[in-house]
Amino acid sequence: MKIKEVHLKQYFTGAPSLEYFDIVSRDLPSPGEGEVRVQNLWLSVDPYMRPRMAGLKTYIDPFEIGKAMEGGAVGIIESSNHPKFKVGDHVLSMLGWREGYVSDGKGLTPVDTRLLPVETYLGLAGLTGFTAYVGLTRILDLKDGETIWISAGAGAVGCAAIQMAKAMGAHVIASAGGAEKCALLKELGCDGVIDYKAEDNLTAAVKREAPGGIDAYFENVGGAHLEAALNTLKPLGRIAACGMISRYNDDRAQPGPSNIINVVTKSLRMQGFIVTQHMDLQPRFIEALSTWMMKGQIKNHQTIYEGIERAPEAFMGLFSGSNTGKMVVKV
Amino acid sequence: MKIKEVHLKQYFTGAPSLEYFDIVSRDLPSPGEGEVRVQNLWLSVDPYMRPRMAGLKTYIDPFEIGKAMEGGAVGIIESSNHPKFKVGDHVLSMLGWREGYVSDGKGLTPVDTRLLPVETYLGLAGLTGFTAYVGLTRILDLKDGETIWISAGAGAVGCAAIQMAKAMGAHVIASAGGAEKCALLKELGCDGVIDYKAEDNLTAAVKREAPGGIDAYFENVGGAHLEAALNTLKPLGRIAACGMISRYNDDRAQPGPSNIINVVTKSLRMQGFIVTQHMDLQPRFIEALSTWMMKGQIKNHQTIYEGIERAPEAFMGLFSGSNTGKMVVKV
Repeated sequence: MKIKEVHLKQYFTGAPSLEYFDIVSRDLPSPGEGEVRVQNLWLSVDPYMRPRMAGLKTYIDPFEIGKAMEGGAVGIIESSNHPKFKVGDHVLSMLGWREGYVSDGKGLTPVDTRLLPVETYLGLAGLTGFTAYVGLTRILDLKDGETIWISAGAGAVGCAAIQMAKAMGAHVIASAGGAEKCALLKELGCDGVIDYKAEDNLTAAVKREAPGGIDAYFENVGGAHLEAALNTLKPLGRIAACGMISRYNDDRAQPGPSNIINVVTKSLRMQGFIVTQHMDLQPRFIEALSTWMMKGQIKNHQTIYEGIERAPEAFMGLFSGSNTGKMVVKV
Repeated sequence: MKIKEVHLKQYFTGAPSLEYFDIVSRDLPSPGEGEVRVQNLWLSVDPYMRPRMAGLKTYIDPFEIGKAMEGGAVGIIESSNHPKFKVGDHVLSMLGWREGYVSDGKGLTPVDTRLLPVETYLGLAGLTGFTAYVGLTRILDLKDGETIWISAGAGAVGCAAIQMAKAMGAHVIASAGGAEKCALLKELGCDGVIDYKAEDNLTAAVKREAPGGIDAYFENVGGAHLEAALNTLKPLGRIAACGMISRYNDDRAQPGPSNIINVVTKSLRMQGFIVTQHMDLQPRFIEALSTWMMKGQIKNHQTIYEGIERAPEAFMGLFSGSNTGKMVVKV
């Protein structure tokens, strides 16, 4: 069986470009004893993959050059010599960026497609939704009636966070770039919407939407967004630093927030987090998510690119803002 | 009775200078019914006073122009018509920057001079020592065996924090400017000492003293110090943002840390705090401090300026680094 994989050709700084990726065809053998062969149906591309392409060791190792990259994927068992998996079962894995694979079953998680569409496990019910949940609950300790600003609101984590924050009773301000995305934010139920591309002064825009200041800031962007948050947070305000997508492609150091001293003068707390450090919250997350989805308070939003060849393009789209909701590739 | 007071003449940005302060003489009346007259013995000057001189409302109101400023002070009751206070008692107040005052007793705290020298209540046993304690315990959650970097180590809070961190079993790196201060840091028991004025690259200096990285950073300085901390903190590291003295006199915004993204990539937590939000820890602090002082693990360090006229100069000295330990004025 012939499959295609996406390989990383070299580590790079600066903006991602097609030249750094190879589409490679190879033969996938039949599964051996105790193995399964899986055909991927959906692949996930996510901002956290960017540092792995720079050769930097952060909380996760860099990708290996000349091999299929890793990433979230859901697939279907196509052939099985493994007692735990049967043909037609759906499984979640970190073996994305490829049309299929042979596995001994380690790292494969069965998913129930009767409850949710299978691709949801890459988004709302997967690490994306869980990231939003951990950020709002454990990191921000968001309370009923508080005001939160969610940046990159039209992104995957943002869409999830907005709906969850509303369901938790918060007053939600969200920002995104462009009229189309801002229309989505309104649809999602935001109390205040900011098109940052149309604003000269982001601090003034946040003050306009939240005249009393904000209690919490869900940070996905960095740069001017972080500065505006530091300006508008109330004393004892909290920042959940989930990502800083505006900074991932910098090829040299950029000045940081010139008003970082607000952390001292307003006793702010700024905390970075990675969901894998908070897996103990997973059962509570699934329970909360099911309840919210059953009540219709939360819906899945995604942008779909079709074909494995378009996976690099989908990844690049994360940085040019071409997705609303979760960016996924349909294999 | 004639006394002298220090008044603020105008709000200012940039470096403090004598021209912004007035020394004013006035008559202090005899205490009325239910009042006491207090002669101040020691006054405290502290970095947190700087924003109050800029007319900025932060967690505390600006000073009033043309009035005696506020600040920690210990004095002796010189005349009393108040049942709770008798002549010769020592009291702690926020009525510093003046040689004496008349009070109805509100805001006056009796201090026991048999246990500790009276001026200690402005330093180690006062808000200075308590700041170090809150930062190390509640904010940094410092554990036995962890490595901590304490900036402005020769300052009032720094001296206290170094000794407490050592008493708590931590591996302590501290920094200060100049050979004399660094000699003090060694005397205080630091495991590693950095003279930041003698280093081209503060990140390299911290790595040299803590090759495995640091678990916690006690931030008193800001600027290049904060950048070096963000570079050298281990994943899940913590920053207690107690102050950023390098930034208080800026008259325009300065670029912030260019590596703030480390908060995301290393899941760091940075938290500003003000001790008055943590008064519930006071009893535990006094208990811990007594134990440490009895064992000889912690000593009081101070720099003394004599005469109320020199109070503005003492305050200015905080920013030029002319103090080791707590800066106090002997009235």
